[in-house]
Amino acid sequence: KQIALLLGDGIGQEVIQSAVEVLDAVADEYGHKFEFESFDIGGAAIDRHETPLPDKTIRGCEQADAVLLGAVGGPRWENHPSHLRPEKGLLGIRKALGLFANLRPVKGFPQLLHASPLKEEVVSGSDLLIIRELTGGLYFGEPSEIREDGQSVVDTLAYQRHEIERIVDQAFQSARLRRKHLTSVDKANVLESSKLWREVVEEKRKDYPDVAVEHLLVDAAAMKLITDPTQFDVIVTENMFGDILSDEASVLTGSLGMLPSASLRTDGVGLYEPVHGSAPDIAGQGLANPLAMILSTALMLRHSFQLEEEAKAVEEAVQETLRLGYHTADLNVVEGEQVGTDVMTRLVVEGIS
Amino acid sequence: KQIALLLGDGIGQEVIQSAVEVLDAVADEYGHKFEFESFDIGGAAIDRHETPLPDKTIRGCEQADAVLLGAVGGPRWENHPSHLRPEKGLLGIRKALGLFANLRPVKGFPQLLHASPLKEEVVSGSDLLIIRELTGGLYFGEPSEIREDGQSVVDTLAYQRHEIERIVDQAFQSARLRRKHLTSVDKANVLESSKLWREVVEEKRKDYPDVAVEHLLVDAAAMKLITDPTQFDVIVTENMFGDILSDEASVLTGSLGMLPSASLRTDGVGLYEPVHGSAPDIAGQGLANPLAMILSTALMLRHSFQLEEEAKAVEEAVQETLRLGYHTADLNVVEGEQVGTDVMTRLVVEGIS
Ligand SMILES: CC(C)[C@H](C(=O)O)[C@@H](O)C(=O)O
Ligand SMILES: CC(C)[C@H](C(=O)O)[C@@H](O)C(=O)O
Repeated sequence: KQIALLLGDGIGQEVIQSAVEVLDAVADEYGHKFEFESFDIGGAAIDRHETPLPDKTIRGCEQADAVLLGAVGGPRWENHPSHLRPEKGLLGIRKALGLFANLRPVKGFPQLLHASPLKEEVVSGSDLLIIRELTGGLYFGEPSEIREDGQSVVDTLAYQRHEIERIVDQAFQSARLRRKHLTSVDKANVLESSKLWREVVEEKRKDYPDVAVEHLLVDAAAMKLITDPTQFDVIVTENMFGDILSDEASVLTGSLGMLPSASLRTDGVGLYEPVHGSAPDIAGQGLANPLAMILSTALMLRHSFQLEEEAKAVEEAVQETLRLGYHTADLNVVEGEQVGTDVMTRLVVEGIS
Repeated sequence: KQIALLLGDGIGQEVIQSAVEVLDAVADEYGHKFEFESFDIGGAAIDRHETPLPDKTIRGCEQADAVLLGAVGGPRWENHPSHLRPEKGLLGIRKALGLFANLRPVKGFPQLLHASPLKEEVVSGSDLLIIRELTGGLYFGEPSEIREDGQSVVDTLAYQRHEIERIVDQAFQSARLRRKHLTSVDKANVLESSKLWREVVEEKRKDYPDVAVEHLLVDAAAMKLITDPTQFDVIVTENMFGDILSDEASVLTGSLGMLPSASLRTDGVGLYEPVHGSAPDIAGQGLANPLAMILSTALMLRHSFQLEEEAKAVEEAVQETLRLGYHTADLNVVEGEQVGTDVMTRLVVEGIS
């Protein structure tokens, strides 16, 4: 299997290195062959090629079976004009590869739940999956421009029906593999796009009679994620709502540094990245928590390579390190032993081998 | 002073009745004269006039010095076509009156903080004000339509520069009256509208050198509201982001049933309504918590009538009832005495007289 590595900025390089070590261990243990090739993206690409997404990167990712991304962004590029911002590389590669489905599982780790801002009785037991539409909506609709010399501005939230259909199908399929409950989030009392969204969900539910469906307005969803997170199984929503709600959900369990994500299309090609950012403040110091990146490789094994057993082995190795009390500086754990990126990675590798 | 009453649906009628009793007490005590006239809106208006916002209601509100709104909506009208939905009445009256600034203060009540989903050490001390642009953005931009017989759909996020300027001015002015810290929330790494928004904030800050300004991306804001709510003072943001973030913020302190809101324009005319909805499940039973509506009248006294002393008297009377242990069923208080709408209203009235 060919895997494209997009190191990006900040701690991206360090956590990608960990991912490669873990995948090498998986390859050894289960008799696979993974080949890696690195490409530039984000700030690093701007510095070297004057664009956050060089053509070579797009071509390399197109030829790969899966893509691992570290993180992009940092203060160095913050005042650049918008086409020269690291984030454009991320948005661009999602769009170029047609990765329309962003999957973000949020599940508490018992050892970390004490770090949650929520009361334990509220958050305990929550285990949800947010599925965000990733290549449409407000992010990519045209026109999107400042007009009349700065006197007005417009962005466009546009969807084709088939774009809604495929993400809703993805969500129903994911719900089937879980607790068979789907919450579709929209703003159907205001937006036309939400009305079409709701219509598509109502139509598709006939194909998945075993999945229970609920519609929830985005403002109500933002409340319920906090007051009742255990009530959710799979949430599906459009790009911008998904951006907001998935970040909101990411802090509920007190373990942002542990959350992986997958961005998929229907043929199984996917891009896998941690939910956390590039953490420029700790970059290069060997302090980065590699677990979200490592858990992202588990998602790759599962979704792009159909290697469920291997995926589980990685996930269990991660859980075991936590059970043994090892943790990185970000994890807000008092007991056990605090370790750096290298040691944490080695512990996971040992757990797999 | 002429006050238009929009009772609306569900518990709207009951809480408006409480508001009138409280305002009568204020009038008696401080020697004012408030005149009330009721108009139909929402589901009630649909039932009687086949429109959620009759012209007579618009005219009545235009002639008034301020408007009090109970709540709109309920399951009865949920499957109506969109122009016959109660919410359209609410959106319509905001737009018709040009109420571009929605103010939502969120402050914990010590007696209620235990009902917060957040840990006490996280939420304790939070006191923030969300200022949401209310008559522009995705809610009102054109085109907004389903096209090609349901094959595609578009909504439009549009702003005029002056619309951004006036809400940003409002936010700076509000921050000045508080802790002088303004967080402007946008998605400037993706949206053109957010870029113009940020540009306007940067320009306006020169006029308010005493106010500290911070820009925050909407996804980061959704996280920080949960992990660090005490870090906020005033938040200003566009309509849709404000809808989501203000509802998110409304559950932080465990007292959604206590939260008032004001929707203003520059000349002081305003519409005041509780943040909670029409609660059709308990309507007509005398159980509704009138305090959010009563606190909304305090905002009216302050913002539309410049009666600061009277506003404070209402707010203190509400706080005193809580201190004495009185509470309605929704408030999740175990000690003290549970009372209904009437008794709660009478207690507040006694506190003013
Ligand atoms: C960096 C940014 C453009 C991106 C997004 O908004 O999609 C990020 O917030 C994310 O959620 O992956
Ligand atoms: C009822 C609905 C249209 C409204 C809105 O989205 O503005 C409500 O959620 C609010 O926040 O007042």
